[in-house]
Amino acid sequence: MRILLVNDDGIYAKGIRVLANHLRTLGEVVVVAPDRQKSAAGHSLTINDVLLIKEVEIEEGFTGIAVVDGTPTDCVLVGVKDLMKDDPPDFVVSGINHGANLGGDILYSGTVAGALEGLANGFKSMAISLDVHSDEGYFETAAVVATKILQTPELFEGIVEERSILNVNVPNVPLDELNGYRITRQGKTQYENYLEKYVNPQGKTFYWIGGDRPPHELEEDTDSFAVANKYVSITPINIDLTNYALIGKLKKILPKLMF
Amino acid sequence: MRILLVNDDGIYAKGIRVLANHLRTLGEVVVVAPDRQKSAAGHSLTINDVLLIKEVEIEEGFTGIAVVDGTPTDCVLVGVKDLMKDDPPDFVVSGINHGANLGGDILYSGTVAGALEGLANGFKSMAISLDVHSDEGYFETAAVVATKILQTPELFEGIVEERSILNVNVPNVPLDELNGYRITRQGKTQYENYLEKYVNPQGKTFYWIGGDRPPHELEEDTDSFAVANKYVSITPINIDLTNYALIGKLKKILPKLMF
Amino acid sequence: MRILLVNDDGIYAKGIRVLANHLRTLGEVVVVAPDRQKSAAGHSLTINDVLLIKEVEIEEGFTGIAVVDGTPTDCVLVGVKDLMKDDPPDFVVSGINHGANLGGDILYSGTVAGALEGLANGFKSMAISLDVHSDEGYFETAAVVATKILQTPELFEGIVEERSILNVNVPNVPLDELNGYRITRQGKTQYENYLEKYVNPQGKTFYWIGGDRPPHELEEDTDSFAVANKYVSITPINIDLTNYALIGKLKKILPKLMF
Amino acid sequence: MRILLVNDDGIYAKGIRVLANHLRTLGEVVVVAPDRQKSAAGHSLTINDVLLIKEVEIEEGFTGIAVVDGTPTDCVLVGVKDLMKDDPPDFVVSGINHGANLGGDILYSGTVAGALEGLANGFKSMAISLDVHSDEGYFETAAVVATKILQTPELFEGIVEERSILNVNVPNVPLDELNGYRITRQGKTQYENYLEKYVNPQGKTFYWIGGDRPPHELEEDTDSFAVANKYVSITPINIDLTNYALIGKLKKILPKLMF
Repeated sequence: MRILLVNDDGIYAKGIRVLANHLRTLGEVVVVAPDRQKSAAGHSLTINDVLLIKEVEIEEGFTGIAVVDGTPTDCVLVGVKDLMKDDPPDFVVSGINHGANLGGDILYSGTVAGALEGLANGFKSMAISLDVHSDEGYFETAAVVATKILQTPELFEGIVEERSILNVNVPNVPLDELNGYRITRQGKTQYENYLEKYVNPQGKTFYWIGGDRPPHELEEDTDSFAVANKYVSITPINIDLTNYALIGKLKKILPKLMF
Repeated sequence: MRILLVNDDGIYAKGIRVLANHLRTLGEVVVVAPDRQKSAAGHSLTINDVLLIKEVEIEEGFTGIAVVDGTPTDCVLVGVKDLMKDDPPDFVVSGINHGANLGGDILYSGTVAGALEGLANGFKSMAISLDVHSDEGYFETAAVVATKILQTPELFEGIVEERSILNVNVPNVPLDELNGYRITRQGKTQYENYLEKYVNPQGKTFYWIGGDRPPHELEEDTDSFAVANKYVSITPINIDLTNYALIGKLKKILPKLMF
Repeated sequence: MRILLVNDDGIYAKGIRVLANHLRTLGEVVVVAPDRQKSAAGHSLTINDVLLIKEVEIEEGFTGIAVVDGTPTDCVLVGVKDLMKDDPPDFVVSGINHGANLGGDILYSGTVAGALEGLANGFKSMAISLDVHSDEGYFETAAVVATKILQTPELFEGIVEERSILNVNVPNVPLDELNGYRITRQGKTQYENYLEKYVNPQGKTFYWIGGDRPPHELEEDTDSFAVANKYVSITPINIDLTNYALIGKLKKILPKLMF
Repeated sequence: MRILLVNDDGIYAKGIRVLANHLRTLGEVVVVAPDRQKSAAGHSLTINDVLLIKEVEIEEGFTGIAVVDGTPTDCVLVGVKDLMKDDPPDFVVSGINHGANLGGDILYSGTVAGALEGLANGFKSMAISLDVHSDEGYFETAAVVATKILQTPELFEGIVEERSILNVNVPNVPLDELNGYRITRQGKTQYENYLEKYVNPQGKTFYWIGGDRPPHELEEDTDSFAVANKYVSITPINIDLTNYALIGKLKKILPKLMF
């Protein structure tokens, strides 16, 4: 098995390093990651600047590629369009993200964007996130989960044709405290962003963005409900944002626009 | 009417300036835009740095707020959480983008992300893009279209409850060559990204990302078909990425994951 | 006469635009400037990233080259190593800076660094600064002064061989209130930098650097005394930082270091 | 002894880590460094953005402060204006730089700039550089040299009053191959910068700056001659750039400028 592994917390983050070491038991792992944290970079591409790469040691004898100021999306391109061009990956994996990617927040998620870029390039792809923001989480749990999912090929059957990926979120608990796996839908939880306002010494206004974590969902089939209840949440995500329910309604209004 | 107007091409771009002037006929327009181009920034938030703002003249007597190194999403937050906090907008409008936002590319679109951030904050929101990449396009056409849509309140009825926005794409033609409006679904077209590879004087590899424009859709109900045929395309977009069709199938595989 | 004109306030700044228009009366002016303000960038080169250029209109029919995220030093290189390679400039001029460059502050000055880079490439070079930080200054005064100095070739005779440039500072007054010109030495005034300390919403410390302007020099032969008394200050600056007075003293201590 | 230690290769660079460990034998060492390489940043201050800091482990139980996107000059300010405000350092040390800082290149040197900022704040300061660009150099040699110099207080007597620092360059050889120490003047060697020119996929021109190392000086009292001959070079550097020799000559020309 050949795996392209990317993330958005950067190549020095604990999550990607723990995962890289687990996935190496499955086959060849090519690590391409930003040279530093790019959280909340979402689905962004670096199109107005270059991508400079350098080799970084993951551990003795195992190196990865750091992309200077790169995003997860950039990293996937570097992997599939150059490094693995002649021998493409079986899977593109993005993570382990430090922090869950649930509900409305997945639109801001660089981790999910990395997996979607894998899909856009025709590969079976998965985003994996651990529900903790510090380095002191149960990354081993998430790494075991990721390995298990990749060893279950049925989960990925036809997924590229469905233009979908798996968005996996893992509760921050020891492996033996996991209650199991749930197939979920994307819930409606979302960080409540706010602005902290400051004045600099030159008298100019500036802000820092903060976010309050929302309470988790109460609906049982959602991603955040699963994680809050110590289940691994697996959500199939696609790239069609159309609200089909609205199309009919809008068509009726259309005549009003004619001129 | 009160409108918050953002974009991702920056406050000096032609698109936002033409639109600002048209929308002022409808009421008060507050312009908040990046201080320079942030295309392909997608749905990204600046969470590891500050947002510094400065006042920029749009035209004699009419100023906007430039957010240094800001994204469209940042700009919406600055607008709704501070500048318009006490007197909120009726609409959040993002554009006129220089370049269409169609098919799979809307996931990379900062313009669409700006409108989605408007929605996330509870406002009726619209993204508007013109199908041209230079300054020499028919921005007036797009500005007239945007004005017309905002004057058709039925199009936005219940849209926030539906967790949706309107993604509007305008063909680059004079107003009288428009064939009309179409309600569309998001198609499957997508730029084909590639990497151009270089070596710098220090012998290090770097890349520049390029993109080839795809042929437009042949399916008549899609966004890109509409634009290619000189119709304004209006797509209702929501923020639920769940692939519901896959959920049942995956649930059947779930037992294989038990441990 | 052929002139390469750079600055560090960016290509949209008033200072460089006023100066460009005056210098065009002397011959051909090639404008290369950062795409935005790079103040306090000092003598820095962009060696870990690329320099992307784009054409920007200065006024009807007269364009300059903007260097994305460039420094004044970068701009000189783009000018002399590429744009003017086959037909080199007679002078490299850096400015008009918004703000004086006096005393110890010239070490932080991107404007002075631009002129020093001109020298390093073998060209007669001048930095010119106006003692005002807003756009509402007497830039015309400084532009007339710059023109006059460039029309006095004796001031630049042998200056490259002396490995020196002229650092010119202009008081912010109407032309007819100038008291004349002074040849000065670099004084000891220096901004007193301080840190304003903040905490972001995530509880992390950050700072903004502020600076208090020092009182001007009382010694009559200094740069800041001249400007404070409404004289244009012209200081010949070289690139030898050696403190020769200390060399003898240190040599006597040298034996203590032997091992 | 209390030492503030900064650099411009970033807090993860080998040079600063080796030096930090050696200097700890002399007393308390506070490490403040950019979070990544800022070479050729020269004497620049981050005045248009904030300085965000985070703690980074240097080795078990010994942490330093990383300044996100900071310059060496910024790091000195963070150290002396905040972290060591109540208990100021005896010395500000900048290095060990990866690469010598000799001749005309010291004007571009962030390492030297860091030491000059220490001086500007009233502290005895030293820049130290090793003549190698890879991680595989004799950093131990440079660390021993730095320690020895700091243990020779006579070298720093009156140096602040002289508005000077010591710029130390160490040959890349094992300690026992050093030929000794030399007090030197700043020579005239300088990297020959050039531009490599490219075209991006959008057809726009961009450049990468390269530099060719010059041959070393033939004059025996210079910094580069010393290093080339396996001597540690110690150059007293001040911040007065005035070319006094030119002042008299220019004064004679002054009447031509009168208007």
